[in-house]
Amino acid sequence: MKRLALAIAAVSLTAFAPAKKPGTAEAVAAAQPADWRRVDPANTLYMEVNGGTVIIELAPQFAPLHVDNIKTLVKERFFDGTSINRVQENYVTQWGDGTEKKSLGTAKATLPLEAERSAKGLAFTRLNHRDAYARQVGFVDGFQAASDGKGRAWMAQCYGVVGVGRGESTESGSGAELYTMIGQAPRHLDRNYAGVGRILQGMELMTALPRGTGQLGFYEQESQRVPIKRVRLGTDVPAAERIDLEVMRTDGKAFATFVDARANRERDGFMIGMRGVDLCNIRVPVRPAAK
Amino acid sequence: MKRLALAIAAVSLTAFAPAKKPGTAEAVAAAQPADWRRVDPANTLYMEVNGGTVIIELAPQFAPLHVDNIKTLVKERFFDGTSINRVQENYVTQWGDGTEKKSLGTAKATLPLEAERSAKGLAFTRLNHRDAYARQVGFVDGFQAASDGKGRAWMAQCYGVVGVGRGESTESGSGAELYTMIGQAPRHLDRNYAGVGRILQGMELMTALPRGTGQLGFYEQESQRVPIKRVRLGTDVPAAERIDLEVMRTDGKAFATFVDARANRERDGFMIGMRGVDLCNIRVPVRPAAK
Repeated sequence: MKRLALAIAAVSLTAFAPAKKPGTAEAVAAAQPADWRRVDPANTLYMEVNGGTVIIELAPQFAPLHVDNIKTLVKERFFDGTSINRVQENYVTQWGDGTEKKSLGTAKATLPLEAERSAKGLAFTRLNHRDAYARQVGFVDGFQAASDGKGRAWMAQCYGVVGVGRGESTESGSGAELYTMIGQAPRHLDRNYAGVGRILQGMELMTALPRGTGQLGFYEQESQRVPIKRVRLGTDVPAAERIDLEVMRTDGKAFATFVDARANRERDGFMIGMRGVDLCNIRVPVRPAAK
Repeated sequence: MKRLALAIAAVSLTAFAPAKKPGTAEAVAAAQPADWRRVDPANTLYMEVNGGTVIIELAPQFAPLHVDNIKTLVKERFFDGTSINRVQENYVTQWGDGTEKKSLGTAKATLPLEAERSAKGLAFTRLNHRDAYARQVGFVDGFQAASDGKGRAWMAQCYGVVGVGRGESTESGSGAELYTMIGQAPRHLDRNYAGVGRILQGMELMTALPRGTGQLGFYEQESQRVPIKRVRLGTDVPAAERIDLEVMRTDGKAFATFVDARANRERDGFMIGMRGVDLCNIRVPVRPAAK
């Protein structure tokens, strides 16, 4: 009886109350074809690992030299037969040549750091919520980004972003060792480590792994490493095997509606919308492309 | 030769440059015995799962009714033989009675929501960095917390915090189903879901698990569930088996130094300190207690 009384009350309230804001699922469902961008196979990596395929979108607008070098490494099959060597709890999963003895072929062994760049020429859509690390945060072509408001911009080191491992010297990275964030976003890496892309699909293959027991989460035994069968550039994947994905455009109205829904949860068991959302808690929607 | 020249330059710089700020490891090492608090066994849970022991500190100051109910469930061995039933990528690991048929014994089946409380009576140490969700953030007795600055406070739903699963009705939780955050902190749960504690040890046992393929990350097959062998209150664990832990006091100078080091990484390969840190990116230090 109590349950029924509540249901009746809800009906009469609905009749007079303004329509509820769309939730995040409704916002995604309502997006039109023009609100989505097809991911370019020339900037896509397919990494076969841990029984599945991880799909990475590269971001040459943030790290052109590293992306170029990574493409060379991939084309020359450098990553095939390497492994995931490090899984550090609440931090990163790292992969590439664990022996550091494998030839880099025609790729460069070190590159200048590309942890930030001029904000000029980037289509930066601002997120109007506070951030602990940067004056401005937002999105560039579907990537989480930040800016100092004084002309410098960078990819934010959010969950699922792919970055370049390096030694203490800033010029010691090449892209032969890469990592992705698997915990609370370690944004202190912003401006210090180069972000080169983000994982669009298969993140669970990188996170549901035993944590390494060595220092910094490195696997202590070679047998613990998770083999990488193969990494291919999207353009080298036969059409029949290709997984075409679309990313929601981050500069349009549909995405703004999605972000607003994410920042103001007031349905499905939520009573208090927090009226705010952290940059790294907004995962830009990805879906299979229409055939 | 190049390497040698750099080393010489570094020596002469060191002689004249001001001493570097301590890093986080140095800040923890420099803390004195009085900077640490022994965790009370009466507010500690030992959960045997996934081949190890997860240690949870309960927070009665935030959710007294739920903590009390959870203690009743534990004492009456409700959790023994239940399981982890849900692992949702970048969100939560959830455990308890997956069948929802097990008797709750003398524990209550539902409780009033304890997602926030009066800020009065809480020793709130403010974190002076921006937050997307709340006017004020900081720490209460080692727990990440937030406040609206108008008299309401709550535990922030950070990585490793333990919360109470419930249905859409706010009064549908009891503590018989609990979850912990395993990805970017879903702070939209703040003020909507009750936080009852945090995991001090064994987090990797909760995160390195296959993600569920059912809706919301629930395991679809009963055989996929991860059995919980036993949950005990610290006071019921024989002295010889007890793992006494200390948490760094969050209201002292040592912790302030630690937070400052976390917010301003400028050593070990970091060039640019971000001069900010997110609440959920500060894991309050935990260590084994001195014998």
